[in-house]
This record gives sequence, C-alpha cells and structure tokens, in this order.
Amino acid sequence: MPDLSTFTLASTVAAVFGVSLGVMMPAIAMGWAISRALDALSRQPEAERSIMRTLFIGLAMIESLAIYVLVIVLIILFRNPLLEYLTQ
Amino acid sequence: MPDLSTFTLASTVAAVFGVSLGVMMPAIAMGWAISRALDALSRQPEAERSIMRTLFIGLAMIESLAIYVLVIVLIILFRNPLLEYLTQ
Amino acid sequence: MPDLSTFTLASTVAAVFGVSLGVMMPAIAMGWAISRALDALSRQPEAERSIMRTLFIGLAMIESLAIYVLVIVLIILFRNPLLEYLTQ
Repeated sequence: MPDLSTFTLASTVAAVFGVSLGVMMPAIAMGWAISRALDALSRQPEAERSIMRTLFIGLAMIESLAIYVLVIVLIILFRNPLLEYLTQ
Repeated sequence: MPDLSTFTLASTVAAVFGVSLGVMMPAIAMGWAISRALDALSRQPEAERSIMRTLFIGLAMIESLAIYVLVIVLIILFRNPLLEYLTQ
Repeated sequence: MPDLSTFTLASTVAAVFGVSLGVMMPAIAMGWAISRALDALSRQPEAERSIMRTLFIGLAMIESLAIYVLVIVLIILFRNPLLEYLTQ
C-alpha cells in the first residue's frame, strides 16, 4: 500500500518527466513555423506585416499547448486536490 | 487490493503523462498548418484574408482537440466521479 | 479477482490515456487537411469558396472521430453501465 511518501515521490518524478515530454512537440512545431516564416520573408519581404502577424498568432496558439502542460504540472506540485484524501 | 492512496497516486501520474501525450500531436498539426500558411502568404500575399481565415478556423479546430484532453485531465484531478465509490 | 477499487483505478487511468491517444491521429489528419487547403488557396485564390467548404466539412468529419473518443471517455467516467454489476 503506497503511503504519503510514495505519493510525493511519484508526483515529483511524474511532474518532471511530464513537463519534459509536454514541451517536446510544441518546440518542434514552433521551429517549423519560424523557419518557414523566415523562408517566406526572404521570398516576399514586402509581405512582412502579414507574415509576422500570422507567425505570432500561430506561435501563441502553440505556446498555449505547452502552457496546458505547465498548468497541470504546477497543480500537481503546488495544490494537488487529490492530496487531501491522503492527509486527512 | 488498491485503496484510496493507490487511486490518487495513479490518477496524478496519469494526469501528468496524459496531458503531455495529448498535446504532442496537436502541436505538430499546428506547426504544419502555420508553416504552410506562411508558405502560402509568401506565394500569394494578396490572398491574405482568406488564408488567415482558413488558418485560424483550422487552428481553433486543432486546439479543441487539445482542450478535450485538458478537460478530461481536470475532471480526473478535481472532481472524479469514480472517486465517490472509494470514499464512501 | 478485481474489486471495485481496482475497477475505478483502471477506469481512471484508461480514460486519461484513452483520450490522449484518441486525439493524436485526428490532430495529424486536421493538420494535413488544413495545410493542403492553404496550399490550394495560394495556387487558386479564386476557388476560395469551394476550397473552404470542402475543408470545413472535412474538418467536421475528423472532429467527429475525436468526439467519439470523448463521448466514450465521459461515459466511462460518469456513468459506466458495467459498474452496476460491482456495486450491487
């Protein structure tokens, strides 16, 4: 039967690996988007305004995915609602 | 026989890894869509309005998939209906 | 012999990983469809109406696949009909 110490141990390890896995693919996606934006800028420098607007909104959307992971990990670490069942 | 502490432990670990796995492929899909939109903008800068409308509706559809995962994870963490069978 | 606590534990873990796995490939498919639609828009901007109609019907069909996963996961979490055999 795991107790409170096992719980804190597993939560910590899961938090670290969870955030590591969670930022992998958003980072790849941002790299693609930025590299393609630079390519587009070099081909059509006069379309800079629309390219940068599209890029920044897109990066914000990808960033939101990584922030979901971060929020869950911070909830796990700082205020895990499931922890109340063990401490009472 | 697992009890309440095993349940909370497994829920926490599953929540972290679940959200990490769940944002992976939406991030990749967003990266593809954004990079192809930037490519399209550099080729047809005068079609900016229709390109951006298509891109943003598409990003919202992909974002909805990630939000499904987030909703399930938050349900598991904060108000798991299956937990009532263990606490009573 | 698994009992009620094992059942709820496995249901919770399966729900989280199920929805994470279930949105992976719909996200990939949406990314493909959107990126190819943007490619088509940049090549034939005057065909915008038919391209967007085709894209949105396609995205709705892909979204329905992810919603199937979500519905099953919510049934598992909130009202699993198989649970009655254990609680009585």
